[in-house]
Amino acid sequence: MSHSQSAPQAGAQPLTRTLARELKDHVDQKAMVHGWLHKKRLMGGMAFILIRDRSGVSQVLIEDKAEQEKIASVQIGSIVRIVGQVVSEPRAPGGVEIHEPAVEVTNPIHEVSPIELDKDISHRPDNLETLFENKVVAVRNLKERSIFKIRSELNRYIRQFLHEQDFTEIQTPKLLAGATEGGAEVFKVSYFEREAVLAQSPQFYKQIMAGSFERVFEIGPTFRAEPSMTSRHMSEITMLDIEMAFIEKHEDVLQFTEKLLYNILTRVYAEHADTLKLLKAPELVIKPNFPRYAVDQIHEMYTKATGESTIGEKDMRPDEERWIVEYAKEHDGCELVFVTEFPVEAMKFYHMVNPDKPNKVLWADLLFRGLEIATCPMREHRYEKLMEQMKNAGLDISHPGYKYYLQAFKYGMPPHGGFGFGIDRLVQKVLGLANVKEATLFPRDMNRLTP
Amino acid sequence: MSHSQSAPQAGAQPLTRTLARELKDHVDQKAMVHGWLHKKRLMGGMAFILIRDRSGVSQVLIEDKAEQEKIASVQIGSIVRIVGQVVSEPRAPGGVEIHEPAVEVTNPIHEVSPIELDKDISHRPDNLETLFENKVVAVRNLKERSIFKIRSELNRYIRQFLHEQDFTEIQTPKLLAGATEGGAEVFKVSYFEREAVLAQSPQFYKQIMAGSFERVFEIGPTFRAEPSMTSRHMSEITMLDIEMAFIEKHEDVLQFTEKLLYNILTRVYAEHADTLKLLKAPELVIKPNFPRYAVDQIHEMYTKATGESTIGEKDMRPDEERWIVEYAKEHDGCELVFVTEFPVEAMKFYHMVNPDKPNKVLWADLLFRGLEIATCPMREHRYEKLMEQMKNAGLDISHPGYKYYLQAFKYGMPPHGGFGFGIDRLVQKVLGLANVKEATLFPRDMNRLTP
Repeated sequence: MSHSQSAPQAGAQPLTRTLARELKDHVDQKAMVHGWLHKKRLMGGMAFILIRDRSGVSQVLIEDKAEQEKIASVQIGSIVRIVGQVVSEPRAPGGVEIHEPAVEVTNPIHEVSPIELDKDISHRPDNLETLFENKVVAVRNLKERSIFKIRSELNRYIRQFLHEQDFTEIQTPKLLAGATEGGAEVFKVSYFEREAVLAQSPQFYKQIMAGSFERVFEIGPTFRAEPSMTSRHMSEITMLDIEMAFIEKHEDVLQFTEKLLYNILTRVYAEHADTLKLLKAPELVIKPNFPRYAVDQIHEMYTKATGESTIGEKDMRPDEERWIVEYAKEHDGCELVFVTEFPVEAMKFYHMVNPDKPNKVLWADLLFRGLEIATCPMREHRYEKLMEQMKNAGLDISHPGYKYYLQAFKYGMPPHGGFGFGIDRLVQKVLGLANVKEATLFPRDMNRLTP
Repeated sequence: MSHSQSAPQAGAQPLTRTLARELKDHVDQKAMVHGWLHKKRLMGGMAFILIRDRSGVSQVLIEDKAEQEKIASVQIGSIVRIVGQVVSEPRAPGGVEIHEPAVEVTNPIHEVSPIELDKDISHRPDNLETLFENKVVAVRNLKERSIFKIRSELNRYIRQFLHEQDFTEIQTPKLLAGATEGGAEVFKVSYFEREAVLAQSPQFYKQIMAGSFERVFEIGPTFRAEPSMTSRHMSEITMLDIEMAFIEKHEDVLQFTEKLLYNILTRVYAEHADTLKLLKAPELVIKPNFPRYAVDQIHEMYTKATGESTIGEKDMRPDEERWIVEYAKEHDGCELVFVTEFPVEAMKFYHMVNPDKPNKVLWADLLFRGLEIATCPMREHRYEKLMEQMKNAGLDISHPGYKYYLQAFKYGMPPHGGFGFGIDRLVQKVLGLANVKEATLFPRDMNRLTP
């Protein structure tokens, strides 16, 4: 993919900007690069500088003393325009170097950056707060920056895949009249003369909209007031939410989840192999059909393998999640695993009970690299049955958060299902980052509201 | 664009679902449709029903009394599966009709919808609250639904265009440490033991990120606590925000704005002509280069044309905005107009003063169909100059909202500019809707927090 900005050289016309990645197409020509002074090095009277732009870095050799002087007096981060001759140089980044440059510092900087931009930034747990505090500058680091390029690309692949599958993008409100589920974990907003809350999930809205467009998705922020300081929690999360109607069975949800994840993961590994290598992302072990294990089956396998009994537990332990993914990676050749057959004791009111096994729910969890990344259930779409499940769960169906949701069912909902996952968590897992906050531009938690 | 879900008919295999738009490819074959009962009509012993799905409606002729009976006992909105013979029928929607159907009501509905789904819903001002209150069901109306299909498509076109122009998508925080500009109009959030505010705009973050990726955009929610009940105000707005660095001059921002708007508008009119006709959208009058008029010039022209003097005013009056767009539509053949040369008295601290005309700002407003939809300025990128402008504006540069923003400049920012506009307002103007809330799925204002 080349997005050329540069026009062929034409007589007295001023040169247009050439990006670092395009320089190789200008060997033996004059070119202009304009970017951030990324690095400077003096070697035996010769100065080598690197100029950074959005596509990478260009190496420039400055031999002339007067030109060297211009760079000597300014700091890394200064904006510099270089006009010079492009020559082939296998030892330089991209295989080219600019010689005999005319140097112009278009925006001189005199302060020393608090973050080194030409070296790796430590992601050790004890350095993360320093990284986050200086993120405004740290995102200029090539490696740090590439995390968010991958994130942008994953978003794009998801949207493109969903469009090809006839999905409609929706934008649902984040300001709501009142909390429904987990009221303790919602942020309260002073809303004119009354109180509003911030949406924890577009769950109800996506179901409502599946009642119109059948296939809908949203990528947007959600807010969780969980007072947890862990590597997995943030108070603001970017979620992908998907809902699809007129499915025939729960299996349709699982197959669609497989198709989406297989598509975007194999694509990012194919199209960004170099970046993933730079970021030391783990190799991808994947098959089009993800292995499936029932909760009880995993409890048995885990108990047998480790000697630690989990038999009879209604949910999965974090250790078991890690164990089963490792197991599947080795035995099934796939590090994405569905955990199926959750017991009704663990269900949410909007899940559908398995009609063939009334003590099981039509719900599967998707695990990826040791972590649950998505919950993939079929929903209860029958109005009477849904109200019954809500009453059994002790919910007040007259609450505004439920009242409008129930209208969708009262006036006709088809069978549907869907899933959602945090984009932050997906990026974290793809890149093998230890903390979800490393995958987020400006993370938010109990203690951090800046930058 | 066809997204076929149906497989060729194969012996005893159960039929897979065929969408309404695909039926024409199945003439003289058996097909299964599964959707909402959209309309039923009895004519001389024959029943005609319409089945709605995400692609449109399928017409079914039921002659058999027993099959008619199944439909007679349920309400519009019921989920119905039909298996029958597809025949060519020029008078039916899509030119085909299903005959000799076997009818199965898979989810019977017994309540009468509060909104008629097979007729136009009134968008008269006095009916809007009824529409919004019943939106959960109203979005199933074909015409109502198509507003949000156009919205989804416009979002997609914008993203696709920006990707082709090498932009990176960013997701910036909506929870902030404190208000900066217009502190009175921010929503306050109770954030653990302290107070946060909701982002009114990703302005600072997109500039910060232009300092890394050069070209960035975000489509996301913004929040404004304006106590206004007008056809232009909402408290939650979906904004497109764009920023591009290493521009050479203000003109680059204007040309990019033209390219983007020209691309997405001509595309939506070309690819969705039928839908825009159904929605009675105005015809598009556009040229690749939008006419430009200076504020003072418009004041003079308007004064001359109307006899009402606006000469010397620093901003545009709403009447003038409408007038100049009508003027340009007629004289320039374009209903998008740039208003240029705003005086420094009206500038924001982050705008750049025109170096050639120190009493003018490098800032243009884009008008479309009588309304300002975007502000397109070049930014001040020089640290010292920016701080000076902030001090002149009386701002406290130690405020966390400014402190991190200023870091981006302190450590080197290239010349940059950008713009933003409300997706809601764009959709409103494209479709010729009177109120911005009509272009929003679930609008929020002073009085409305539901559905």
